[in-house]
Amino acid sequence: MPLLVMKFGGTSVANLDRIRRAAKRVGVEVAKGYDVIVIVSAMSGKTNELVGWVGETSPLYDAREYDAVVSSGENVTAGLMALTLQEMDVPARSWQGWQVPLKTNSAHSQARIEDIGTDNINAKFGEGMKVAVVAGFQGVSPEGRITTLGRGGSDTTAVAFAAAFGAERCDIYTDVDGVYTTDPRICEKARKLDKIAFEEMLELASLGAKVLQTRSVELAMRYKVKLRVLSSFEEQSDEAGTLVCDEEEIMESNVVNGVAYSRDEAKLTCLSVADRPGIAATIFGCLSDAGVNVDMIVQNISEDGRTDMTFSCPTDQVQRAEVALSAYKEKGELNYGELVADTGVAKISVVGIGMRSQSGVAAKMFKVLSDEGINIKVITTSEIKISVLVDRKYMELAVQALHDAFELDKAS
Amino acid sequence: MPLLVMKFGGTSVANLDRIRRAAKRVGVEVAKGYDVIVIVSAMSGKTNELVGWVGETSPLYDAREYDAVVSSGENVTAGLMALTLQEMDVPARSWQGWQVPLKTNSAHSQARIEDIGTDNINAKFGEGMKVAVVAGFQGVSPEGRITTLGRGGSDTTAVAFAAAFGAERCDIYTDVDGVYTTDPRICEKARKLDKIAFEEMLELASLGAKVLQTRSVELAMRYKVKLRVLSSFEEQSDEAGTLVCDEEEIMESNVVNGVAYSRDEAKLTCLSVADRPGIAATIFGCLSDAGVNVDMIVQNISEDGRTDMTFSCPTDQVQRAEVALSAYKEKGELNYGELVADTGVAKISVVGIGMRSQSGVAAKMFKVLSDEGINIKVITTSEIKISVLVDRKYMELAVQALHDAFELDKAS
Repeated sequence: MPLLVMKFGGTSVANLDRIRRAAKRVGVEVAKGYDVIVIVSAMSGKTNELVGWVGETSPLYDAREYDAVVSSGENVTAGLMALTLQEMDVPARSWQGWQVPLKTNSAHSQARIEDIGTDNINAKFGEGMKVAVVAGFQGVSPEGRITTLGRGGSDTTAVAFAAAFGAERCDIYTDVDGVYTTDPRICEKARKLDKIAFEEMLELASLGAKVLQTRSVELAMRYKVKLRVLSSFEEQSDEAGTLVCDEEEIMESNVVNGVAYSRDEAKLTCLSVADRPGIAATIFGCLSDAGVNVDMIVQNISEDGRTDMTFSCPTDQVQRAEVALSAYKEKGELNYGELVADTGVAKISVVGIGMRSQSGVAAKMFKVLSDEGINIKVITTSEIKISVLVDRKYMELAVQALHDAFELDKAS
Repeated sequence: MPLLVMKFGGTSVANLDRIRRAAKRVGVEVAKGYDVIVIVSAMSGKTNELVGWVGETSPLYDAREYDAVVSSGENVTAGLMALTLQEMDVPARSWQGWQVPLKTNSAHSQARIEDIGTDNINAKFGEGMKVAVVAGFQGVSPEGRITTLGRGGSDTTAVAFAAAFGAERCDIYTDVDGVYTTDPRICEKARKLDKIAFEEMLELASLGAKVLQTRSVELAMRYKVKLRVLSSFEEQSDEAGTLVCDEEEIMESNVVNGVAYSRDEAKLTCLSVADRPGIAATIFGCLSDAGVNVDMIVQNISEDGRTDMTFSCPTDQVQRAEVALSAYKEKGELNYGELVADTGVAKISVVGIGMRSQSGVAAKMFKVLSDEGINIKVITTSEIKISVLVDRKYMELAVQALHDAFELDKAS
């Protein structure tokens, strides 16, 4: 029997009516002859409520208890979804992580999936069950305790099930109708993509396009799981939404497929650092130990044995970075003149697998920004992405100008 | 290490403040040198919310999914309680039913406990854990599915743990400060009992005194678990509340220790039933199949081979009884003249283990009611209890008069 995985996020199961609507979508696929594994999130708001209670009870909480509490929201939705399907005469039952079992490591609150047992669920498919409703976001540790996979973990659960069960496709139902060339809220010409390559989606996901959790895209790429993002609020055809797939399946692609942005970035510069081997390791080891998520790194040309080291991080981590670096300076482990922080910047990126085979994308990007009078503060590039830091006040203008210049409103 | 079981009901863990207050009570016992197993209910209102969702989703729900959904409330409280204790530097962790494991049969939504594994929890006590917080009301079936024990099941969980772990005592924290001679809301002279025998508590519990679930008292009696009922809202001494214990531990007892009532009773009479062997089996087999909870049964003296059969049941089951009996009558399996229902009655009972050794209690009860002009409609008796049905309008008067006559306001 061909098998589909369908994942419904929190807004798609926010109340009993929406659960019914989602169940009808599942029923359509069952009627086509599919066995279905449904992955559900908690009803929207529930996880935040539980997280709030844990934080209020214990600011530095035991992550094992956090997981025990926070995972309960998905259990409720899974049971209700199974009941809704049964009411529609679709044979269904719910599964919690430990019942599957979905085995993880012991890194509570951000556990990694190690194995998914397929025997229990396949046995029930063999007995006539048509739909297994699985509580997303949770698993069980080697010690037999409940673990959770981190925020957005239900996407990862869905892709992992699709890989383990060899699903034909993994459909992610959410509150948007697909992946866009950029955020429609700041660029009205934004266009929904019919297909996007895993690598591009990965860059867009990690750049702040919140449609899919980064890890789920990584996992889909590794196991070649066809991933579709679509809206649970619209009538669906088989071609709805955006298919995230191997680049071979995309016949022709624009050079640039998306413009992403990240609003709350800060740029920090260590002035006049001694330019000797190991200095970068010292600085970024110090920041890593302090839990600062460093993104872009640029080192200026050395003069007189001194250099400037510039990096970016989220604005809310600036203070942590300052404290950590000055502690190292006081201990004499690091020698620099001054630490300058600019918390008024944003990151703009253009992404596209076509860049690999076409040059001139960077030059074009810089010219577009220059023509708009936007100064570029930092540049980094990867094989399929070019990112720049600019003053935050220019963020929307930069996105719109680049979207126009690369003609993202037109399909390839 | 001596061990205590402490159970906190829904109102005692209704919010984070109350959980903190309950945790402080636990901390007091830990400071005295006890290892503690805490059994928690869901925060008050949560279980009703979940039950409501299940009923709305699927009126004739699959009890296995009902259990998966409804058990989640206790998991939340267990985790939050463990975190609260940890914040107080008391080593604690939470346990869900399947983790203990608390094994039950497969009678979903009203499962019976079959076994409680003590190895896992004892191993953690051995490692320095001082408090095991266990989610009440739930277990796991032989098929590995989550079961629940029926409403009030957390009391039963607590007693079962006390039996399995050989606890010194099982303290049930609730929103009343003990067991009373009768309901203080309808008799202001009602007095809190310091001690009550298991048998008496069992009669009072099944008669509608909602302090303890009947099954928990049965279990405590069978395994000789000392049970204490006390308030979580008052400062507690070691003598607080009411101790439910073996009658040998009660030195001197009143002949009558409690007056109980049950408001929503109905009296039904099958008139002119053929008086032949097997007729009672037919009638009550029919009612049992229809799910009618028959309580009192009285058969009148037979005349001319015909008799009247009177029984009582909750008022909301009268219609079900009528439908079931007339169906039997139409099929010719039962022959009776008419079915007369009186839905305006209440049951009043006096309970006391002293009745075993002292006669005249029934006579006194009937005289007290007669003196107040209250007509008795049905009488049944057991070794330690006398129950009567009277018109509901006399219920409060009857309770007060009996409470006075047996001097229940005075300690023995």
